Parts: sequence; C-alpha cells; structure tokens
Amino acid sequence: MTLAAWLAFLELAAIVAGAASGLLVAARQRLDVVGATVVASATAFGGGTLRDVLLDRRPFFWVEHHVYLWGVIGFSLLAWPLLVRGRISLSEKMLVIPDAVGLGLFGATGVGLATQAGMPVLIAVLMGVVTATFGGLLRDLLCNRLPVVLHDHRPYAICAFVGAWIQIGLTRIDIDPSTAALAGAIVAAVFRLIAWWRDWRLPGWPSP
Amino acid sequence: MTLAAWLAFLELAAIVAGAASGLLVAARQRLDVVGATVVASATAFGGGTLRDVLLDRRPFFWVEHHVYLWGVIGFSLLAWPLLVRGRISLSEKMLVIPDAVGLGLFGATGVGLATQAGMPVLIAVLMGVVTATFGGLLRDLLCNRLPVVLHDHRPYAICAFVGAWIQIGLTRIDIDPSTAALAGAIVAAVFRLIAWWRDWRLPGWPSP
Amino acid sequence: MTLAAWLAFLELAAIVAGAASGLLVAARQRLDVVGATVVASATAFGGGTLRDVLLDRRPFFWVEHHVYLWGVIGFSLLAWPLLVRGRISLSEKMLVIPDAVGLGLFGATGVGLATQAGMPVLIAVLMGVVTATFGGLLRDLLCNRLPVVLHDHRPYAICAFVGAWIQIGLTRIDIDPSTAALAGAIVAAVFRLIAWWRDWRLPGWPSP
Repeated sequence: MTLAAWLAFLELAAIVAGAASGLLVAARQRLDVVGATVVASATAFGGGTLRDVLLDRRPFFWVEHHVYLWGVIGFSLLAWPLLVRGRISLSEKMLVIPDAVGLGLFGATGVGLATQAGMPVLIAVLMGVVTATFGGLLRDLLCNRLPVVLHDHRPYAICAFVGAWIQIGLTRIDIDPSTAALAGAIVAAVFRLIAWWRDWRLPGWPSP
Repeated sequence: MTLAAWLAFLELAAIVAGAASGLLVAARQRLDVVGATVVASATAFGGGTLRDVLLDRRPFFWVEHHVYLWGVIGFSLLAWPLLVRGRISLSEKMLVIPDAVGLGLFGATGVGLATQAGMPVLIAVLMGVVTATFGGLLRDLLCNRLPVVLHDHRPYAICAFVGAWIQIGLTRIDIDPSTAALAGAIVAAVFRLIAWWRDWRLPGWPSP
Repeated sequence: MTLAAWLAFLELAAIVAGAASGLLVAARQRLDVVGATVVASATAFGGGTLRDVLLDRRPFFWVEHHVYLWGVIGFSLLAWPLLVRGRISLSEKMLVIPDAVGLGLFGATGVGLATQAGMPVLIAVLMGVVTATFGGLLRDLLCNRLPVVLHDHRPYAICAFVGAWIQIGLTRIDIDPSTAALAGAIVAAVFRLIAWWRDWRLPGWPSP
C-alpha cells in the first residue's frame, strides 16, 4: 500500500469519526436536519480543508474524492432521525471515542501531507495539530459555544502535538512513512483516551 | 448578454440584498456604524469570497469590480442612521424578502462559476448552496448568535439545493446557461418565500 | 533598511502586541493553557494570514519565518502561568496599548504588501484595515463573544482606515515607502489611543 493510498484510507476513517462527533454536538444544540448535516460536514471536512488551504493544495480532497462528501451527507441524513427520535441516547463517552480516533487520524494526514509538501518540521507538526483540531473547533463555532478544545483543561491538542512529533521522529529514523503515520495516529488517540479516562487535567485556575 | 455579463448582474443584485440583510441583523444586535458596515459587507461578500477561495479564483470579484465594495460601504453608511433613528422599523418580513432574493441569486452564481471551472455536478450544487448560505452564516457568526440557517427548522439551504439542481438540469437539456441560472435563482427564491409564508417546517424535535 | 526588511520588523512588533492582547482576553475567558496559546497565536497571526490568503501570498509569513510562530508559542507558555497565578493583574488599559500598537503596525503591513502586489488604492486601504482588525475579531470569535471591534462604539477600525489613507497619500507624494508605512502606523495607533483616553464615541443608539 503506497503512502498516498494509506493517507487516503486514514482520511476516510477520520471523516466518518468527525461526522459522528458533529452530529452529536448538533443534537445537543437541537439544530434542524440541515444544520446537523452542515455541522457534521464541517466537523468532518473542516480540518482537512484548512490544511489544504494552508498548504495551497487543490483540488480539495473532497472535490477529488467527492464520494466522501456524499457519504457524510448520507450518513447524517440516516443517523439524524435516530438521534432526534431518541433511538440513540447521547453521552460524553460517545463523543470521546470518535473524537480521539479523528484526532489521531486527521493529525497524521496533516503531518504526512505537510512533510510531502516540503514544509519545515515545526510547521509540519503544527499542520498536524491544526488538521486534527480545526474540525471540532469549527463545529463549536458554528454551534455558538466556547470551543471545547480551548477551555476544558483536558489534554487534546497536546495529544495531536505529541503524535505529530512521534510520526516525524519515526520518519527521521527511516521507518516507512505509512507505518510512522499509523504510529503517530495511534499514540495521539491512545494518549487522548487515557487522558480522558484518568481525568488528567492541564494546570488550571486557582479557586477564586 | 453573455453568460459572464449575466452572472455579474446577478452578483450585483445579490450583493445589495445581502448588505440589507446584514444591516438588519446588525441593528438588532445594536452594533455601531463600523460594525454594521463590516457585517453588511461580510454578508454581501462572504458567500462569493468563500466560493472564490474554494474555486481558487483570483482576483476576487470585489477586487476586480471594487465599485461593488464601495457601493456596499456607501449603502451601509447611508442606511444605518435611518435604522438607528427609527426611520426604518424592523420586522421578520423585511429580513425574509432580501434574504430569499440573495439566496437564489448567490446560489446561481455559485453553480454557474463552479460549472465553468469544470467541477463535477455534485460539487457545483454544493458550491451553489455554500455561496447562497455562507454570507448569512458569517453574519450570524460575527453577531455571536447561533446561525439561523442551522437551527430554525425552516427550509433555507434546501431551497438553494433545489434551485441548483434545476439550474444544472436545465443546462444539461441545452437550455442557455443564463436562462438556466435565472430559472434556478427564481425557483430557489420562490421556494424560500412560499416555505416562509406557508410556515413549512423541517421535521423537528419531539416535545420534551 | 529596505522596504521588505522594514515591513518584516513592523510585522514582528505587531505579532508580539497581538499575542499579548490574545492572552489577556483568553485569561478573562478562563481558557486553559492550550486555548490561551491558540488564541494568542490566532490574534497575532490571524490578520496577517487572512491578508496572505486574500493576496494569495505563499508561503505564509509564519511559514517563511517560523521563528515568529515559536516566539509566540514560547511567549504564551511563559506568560500564561503569571496571568493564571495573578502575578499580572488585568485591566482595560493593558488591553488598549498593545492593541493600538498592533492596529497601527498590522495595518501598515497590509497596505504595504497590497500596494506591492499592485492592488488598486481602495483595496489596499481595506487590506490594511482587515490586516489590522482581523486578529482581534478572530480572538473574539474563538472566545465566543460579540467582537469588540463591531459593537463598542469606539473608533477602532476607523483608525486603521485613516492611517492607511495617510500611508498611501505619503507614498503618492514620493515619500519613501518605509517612512510612509511608519507614519501611517503611528497615525493609526495615536488616533486609537487618543480616542480611547478622550473616550470618543461613534454615533450611538438613542436611549430606549
């Protein structure tokens, strides 16, 4: 499997995870079916689109592979009635797992494509973090809430940051780029999940 | 009249409608005159600018025809004092009509330009929807409110979606592109207006 | 000192001012350390990045000079604990001065680069205003508050607007571009500071 094919697969898996996370937040905000589809698409494609704009890549991955886009729209239209009618109940836990998977996978595509584009190492790391977190941030902006990634005092962007460095470090020691991307994605996702379950916190504000 | 000239005319009409809609929401949020001008410009040019960024078109249409930009700024500076001093009263109805016109017209330019750029049909439709709705969404983001397009359970983006398919369908059966664009715009705008006046709703949330 | 070097210097100074302003708002919203770093970076680089996207300039200035980016990240990580632990107290006044400096400096880079890119005068002025104000607007969007620039009825974007016209006017009468940029930046910043201290207001809403 070539690096390109591998990155495409990572992208697809990350997109589904992002759409699910978008739908769950949209349901909490009681959006309508169109709003939910928009938020799901923005969450799923926001990170990759910002990545492509910043790296000046055209066509966008969702233009080139527009089946992704219709997959997300179809998925939203199928899943939304189940959410609305209460066939699926909502919990924090359900948000955490797809989010962590998306975090790792999006980050890995960002680092991989920035490296392919010849970006300096430090920019490639940040491009991974941006690709990993911007979908969720855009979701929260659209839903008019303070972005979770900015204020919940839980490790999130940091997980993508660590995963990106792992991915770049492994590439540097001549590990196959696909393997490095997978390793970086897994590190980021697992770090995120552990941080959640152990309830790790970033240094917080003193009690008033 | 060439397709290009026709699209330019549609664009101009849509821009005025967008600016008026921006001013009305800015007035509700009690913005100042600078904020109102910014929101009016963002509403008027947001959809077209995102369309141009996504299609990688430069110069932006408001750089090429910068008289549009100064038209919106002049319009805002003239209309704002009338709004502030209560010479114009605000009502839902006043928001609906310019919004519907803008929805149809912006959508038609999005579909037309995406088709000219050789985009696949499905992407051209979405580009129409994005061009039609992003100005209003940006207006609501700037005014820090949950975007109306996402949560009011009234057909809005769907109208642009339907109009875009009509426009593309007519082009496919060898109707003149200008006529097809006008027809698509009218369908979207009329659909929106009927949906408003008949108070059609998207499937909603069960009462708690 | 060439125009390019001078613009680079202005940019650096403006970036530090923007980051400080971002940190102060982030502290008010009680963000976590990652959120604060993101908001500081977005405030510092938002205006310049939008300027580069609109002018289609690549690589972004923060890719080309990525030391800037790490400077802001380092600055945020050093300053944040001091803010959180109350070693630095917050006041309106502290927000006003770095903001005014950033306003003037960012505006001057926007006007200078747009002019270099051959934009029409009117677009160059607006590019100055956008570069000057977008960082603060993005900061407020990320922090989920109504952007200060849009509603506080105090001269802000107007200061950048006036500075930009001064800068362009001076360039037109054959003043050295570096000097013109400095003069425009000073005019904008001083105008902003005077407006603040004298509590000048834009025409407001009648009392209800």
